[in-house]
Amino acid sequence: MAMATSPWRELLQQAMQSHKHLKHHTHLQLATVRPDGRPANRTLVFRGFVEGTDKLQFTTDSRTHKIDDIKHCPFGEICYYFTDSWEQFRIHGILDLIGHADSDSARKSLREKAWFDSSPRSRGAFAAPHPGHPKASESSEPPKVDPDQGPLDTFCVLTLEPEEIDYYHAKDAVRILFKIAKKENGHKEWSREELNP
Amino acid sequence: MAMATSPWRELLQQAMQSHKHLKHHTHLQLATVRPDGRPANRTLVFRGFVEGTDKLQFTTDSRTHKIDDIKHCPFGEICYYFTDSWEQFRIHGILDLIGHADSDSARKSLREKAWFDSSPRSRGAFAAPHPGHPKASESSEPPKVDPDQGPLDTFCVLTLEPEEIDYYHAKDAVRILFKIAKKENGHKEWSREELNP
Repeated sequence: MAMATSPWRELLQQAMQSHKHLKHHTHLQLATVRPDGRPANRTLVFRGFVEGTDKLQFTTDSRTHKIDDIKHCPFGEICYYFTDSWEQFRIHGILDLIGHADSDSARKSLREKAWFDSSPRSRGAFAAPHPGHPKASESSEPPKVDPDQGPLDTFCVLTLEPEEIDYYHAKDAVRILFKIAKKENGHKEWSREELNP
Repeated sequence: MAMATSPWRELLQQAMQSHKHLKHHTHLQLATVRPDGRPANRTLVFRGFVEGTDKLQFTTDSRTHKIDDIKHCPFGEICYYFTDSWEQFRIHGILDLIGHADSDSARKSLREKAWFDSSPRSRGAFAAPHPGHPKASESSEPPKVDPDQGPLDTFCVLTLEPEEIDYYHAKDAVRILFKIAKKENGHKEWSREELNP
């Protein structure tokens, strides 16, 4: 089904476009809640939207702590900050992991596509020693993975389905809150409200 | 009491130094946990360390949501990401707010110093309409505050006392975990362990 573009996506696309010359324009921070109730925060690379949806896509290793965080609390908040314009998108939503045991065919093929879209260097990381464990060896060269090899078991796709976007343009002192709401007919619709910065 | 420099501070100071030419080199992301148990994440400006301590210092408005977050869960995790070197510091620790009702003299003077160290524009924001409320007026000019005026009631100092720093240098594939531990004699000491990236 064709979808009208969500109102906040145009702002995000403009911000990305105007920062395209900076290698870090796809780097953002994802906050989760650990099983002990404390927050966690790390940088991820934004891999674009899942086709036909508003879900933000990432890749991650099944051996990282965020997997436990998400099992315990499926909510995440992204802070996507653009360093030239001082624009900030706080994107709150529901996280979903697609791992090697997923048997749904659409999810399997999404994971496969994400694997083959990854660089050889990125793929190598999924064959490397357990991330976050005490350093295993002196070598820091990531292992090489056969280019035809399908996704390794450690490879996961992570998506975030936005429920609320708090947009803030510091230089222009503009702040807009976008919220998704279910209408009576079951359709979802984004509301938009200007806030004090 | 003079303190030996904590081992991770040298790395942080080097990263800041090498990014000094970038206006955003003091911008980092702080994750907290909301009263409903979901994560929150936003950009803050790092205002340096509290003198003689390892506490990172920030300023914030008493009318923002993070105040409620911190009352409910005093733990925070900073993701401090350096965009040129791809160095990341995940700094986990205890948050502390110093507000207008604080009566301790050392804390009062810390708050006062932080106020007068702020730019006139920053100070004006604390006199502006309630942040995050529906937009109050067409004007986006921050109010002016008399330069001799002491800290407004909305002005808070926020500090984070680190317990754990997960340092990751993506380009060099180096990851080091620093943890604070109490020794038998009651002194605190930082441990340092190299991890797989």
